[in-house]
Amino acid sequence: MRTRMRPLSPATSRINQMQFPPLDSNNNVSLAQDASTSLHRDFEKVHESMHAAISMNKTEILDAALDDFSEGYFGLSIENRRILLLKLAREYDLSRNQVRELMKQYLALELPSDNAEENAHEGEGSFSAFYRIERNLRQSLKPMYEILFERLNTHPGGLRFLSTMRADILSFLAEENIASVRALDSYLKEKLITWLSPANLQLLNITWDDPASLLEKIVAYEAVHPISNLLDLKRRLGVGRRCFGYLHPAIPGEPLIFIEVALMKNVAQTIQEVLWDDPPIGEHEATTALFYSISSTQPGLSGINLGKFLIKRVIDVVRRDMPGISTFATLSPIPGYMQWLLSKLGSIERSDSPFSENLMKPEEETSLLDAAEESTTGKTGMEIMRNLLSSPSHQWANSEKLSVALKTPLMRLCARYLLHEKKRGKALDSVGNFHLQNGAMIGRINWMADRSEKGLKQSAGIMVNYIYKVEHIEENAQSYFSKGRIQASEEVKIYVDEAQASLQEETKGLED
Amino acid sequence: MRTRMRPLSPATSRINQMQFPPLDSNNNVSLAQDASTSLHRDFEKVHESMHAAISMNKTEILDAALDDFSEGYFGLSIENRRILLLKLAREYDLSRNQVRELMKQYLALELPSDNAEENAHEGEGSFSAFYRIERNLRQSLKPMYEILFERLNTHPGGLRFLSTMRADILSFLAEENIASVRALDSYLKEKLITWLSPANLQLLNITWDDPASLLEKIVAYEAVHPISNLLDLKRRLGVGRRCFGYLHPAIPGEPLIFIEVALMKNVAQTIQEVLWDDPPIGEHEATTALFYSISSTQPGLSGINLGKFLIKRVIDVVRRDMPGISTFATLSPIPGYMQWLLSKLGSIERSDSPFSENLMKPEEETSLLDAAEESTTGKTGMEIMRNLLSSPSHQWANSEKLSVALKTPLMRLCARYLLHEKKRGKALDSVGNFHLQNGAMIGRINWMADRSEKGLKQSAGIMVNYIYKVEHIEENAQSYFSKGRIQASEEVKIYVDEAQASLQEETKGLED
Repeated sequence: MRTRMRPLSPATSRINQMQFPPLDSNNNVSLAQDASTSLHRDFEKVHESMHAAISMNKTEILDAALDDFSEGYFGLSIENRRILLLKLAREYDLSRNQVRELMKQYLALELPSDNAEENAHEGEGSFSAFYRIERNLRQSLKPMYEILFERLNTHPGGLRFLSTMRADILSFLAEENIASVRALDSYLKEKLITWLSPANLQLLNITWDDPASLLEKIVAYEAVHPISNLLDLKRRLGVGRRCFGYLHPAIPGEPLIFIEVALMKNVAQTIQEVLWDDPPIGEHEATTALFYSISSTQPGLSGINLGKFLIKRVIDVVRRDMPGISTFATLSPIPGYMQWLLSKLGSIERSDSPFSENLMKPEEETSLLDAAEESTTGKTGMEIMRNLLSSPSHQWANSEKLSVALKTPLMRLCARYLLHEKKRGKALDSVGNFHLQNGAMIGRINWMADRSEKGLKQSAGIMVNYIYKVEHIEENAQSYFSKGRIQASEEVKIYVDEAQASLQEETKGLED
Repeated sequence: MRTRMRPLSPATSRINQMQFPPLDSNNNVSLAQDASTSLHRDFEKVHESMHAAISMNKTEILDAALDDFSEGYFGLSIENRRILLLKLAREYDLSRNQVRELMKQYLALELPSDNAEENAHEGEGSFSAFYRIERNLRQSLKPMYEILFERLNTHPGGLRFLSTMRADILSFLAEENIASVRALDSYLKEKLITWLSPANLQLLNITWDDPASLLEKIVAYEAVHPISNLLDLKRRLGVGRRCFGYLHPAIPGEPLIFIEVALMKNVAQTIQEVLWDDPPIGEHEATTALFYSISSTQPGLSGINLGKFLIKRVIDVVRRDMPGISTFATLSPIPGYMQWLLSKLGSIERSDSPFSENLMKPEEETSLLDAAEESTTGKTGMEIMRNLLSSPSHQWANSEKLSVALKTPLMRLCARYLLHEKKRGKALDSVGNFHLQNGAMIGRINWMADRSEKGLKQSAGIMVNYIYKVEHIEENAQSYFSKGRIQASEEVKIYVDEAQASLQEETKGLED
């Protein structure tokens, strides 16, 4: 198997980004004017190999063209990659004239009556023309770049390359929203979804006995709770722990996504328990499988929900192998909580705004004012809260008094954030949205569950347990998908209900 | 993994075929009138589960619906399967009204000038509408039954079920060419080609150490040279032999296609050498890899050329593992030769027909008339040849005299059949077409190479060596594909050239 391709390291790409002028519409001119004409020649070579890879017929030489193209592509600067992707999107699009021609033929056909369709054979003949043009239209609606995608997919190393290419397309689109590139991305995404269908993926139980080259990937890509050393890794693969990955045959030795599981007696409330409970309990005592980390290794597969299938498969495997386990839960970060809250608190400045809202209850404000030290700036409770939470040192977390005073409003607002804050009908929090669409419910929120720098910064140290109840997974997923309904335990709902109850009381008081 | 599905045995299907009236257009009425209304109820159940499998949203219950449908389907008579497939093709088609609506929107858009397309950002905006409608059209051009196919593909056992379903569709189409069912087949075939892309298939070197459940499949599906007993099988997996199969992860333990290889000193001329050379040569002495059998296990994958990729992969593997091997060849049957020749000889009766042609040279006719015994009927050489070849006892093959007299015309006509007889620009012989489109050339034809009943019946015992020259594979495939050009060795061409030379001489004589 050829493994000639090497990924571009983030460091290299940053350097390249600085060396080259930003993409402009007259890129040919600016390139010609560029002092480094040899780089221009390199670009042209890659452009030519891309063209060859799309238009060639003889597959023996085609393999070489695909290698040339992917190697050349990796050698390009970020800027030149973008110019190339733009060319791919525009110059290898579909033929709109052909599409229009077929449409005209189609519209000229007379639609047989429903009756004819029902009445079998007589009607069949008149449908032939429809079927024929529909088939031709499906063909002509495929952009020419589909050939490149298809050929790369069956080429050694090609699927991996396509994933890199899509990561580039996504970062391109994040900076500039170009319709043709968006269409390129959406087409490639569709293709990747087909190729990465769960039927083509293998579930691997990753253990300490697996090759170091694979375990190294786990260390490198663990995105939720970074793995600090070899001992930490061994721990996560040892007694009371499981790690499962999804592998594609074309990308051997590197899971596309993996999930870490802790077997426990109870649903853990803090990540410290999971990462450092020493010694772990015996596996026969476990009643709970806790998913404490799920990481994707391919930025180019963004938007392709492999995690959903992975969780479902892992639940099946664990249920089969360990009948003593009846609870499946996560201990998850709440990555968007602080960002949302600080933006809410920021808008208070203009308290004359009709959107201004008092986020704290009077008794909460009193407690916080009492607890605040002299060094803390701010006059109102909300100002103090904002200043404490936005301080990069997170000193409040080390003060018993401040922590106690902040706990009540922060837990209440966290429940509100998770249960009610939405964007286009879906949960605003990305991790929340992920688990809810997979059919989980919100089980519990946990105070001081992640005291790490990252944990304090993104969610004031609060973490959430999502619960997967096997018998409700599909029902929950369905009602979330169709109605945006978020299922939660009474324990979590009470935070919000109390708040609403008191709000209603207030309103009632005003009406009286 | 669920393995609740059982294939319908050919015996059962034949019985069912006799029990039920042939498909007619008023099937509801005829079914209602059928004495066995319970069978009608069964049909309706399967029909309902099919509808549920297409229209349901909750995947947990969906799994059950897919199981119900596939189990129910296997329980249906051939006749009811056909009615169901017809319903699937017609009632779960695409919405033509929606397609037409989108087309009208599309045609109403003004196509930006080429210039605008080139000139980047200004033109981008106007393309957005095109991209959007094109994406919507791609969606609406998907028939509703695609959902069923997609869902089955990711369901345990589903891919296998789809292959059975397609086998039924093909046998349905062979009896009745219905446009909607043809469209169903062509759509399913496209899907299967995507799912069975070589990137998703695993190459397995099948050995005597593999599970009996897998080896049993090899015995059952070997279609070219039936495996007579366990010793025969062990032989084909032993020293000097290889067997490679392509497996799909969703159909474990059963290769979709497999190829048998003999490692030899020379390209074998008879299948007897391959099957019974005892003892085989040491593998280090081998210079030739002879593909002597390639069998597909899934009739539902007809028209999907997995063999091409398999041969290519096997050549790569053998070249890598055994550098001493430089020749890759087949010893192949010529399944259509006798059928073609007998039909040619049959048309001679009407010798006044302008298409009548003397297939024998004068000296060949003389030899055959001399060799013919009294019991042989026929006045002319061609009549005698026809009568000898069409006799089911193949007595000519046991007569030294007759064999010698028949050899010259049969070898000459065989070369003509392989090199010049075509159908729609492709080789008439199906095995020939298979290897030629894969890039092989015709290397040699071998007299009395397969003396089995089957070999004598289909090709008068002649077999052919196709040669795969690694450096010419793609070139040959390409020129066969685009121009129908058949590459052959001088050794084979001489049979036909001589014939043509003498034909030219005759013509010349007439002209003089």
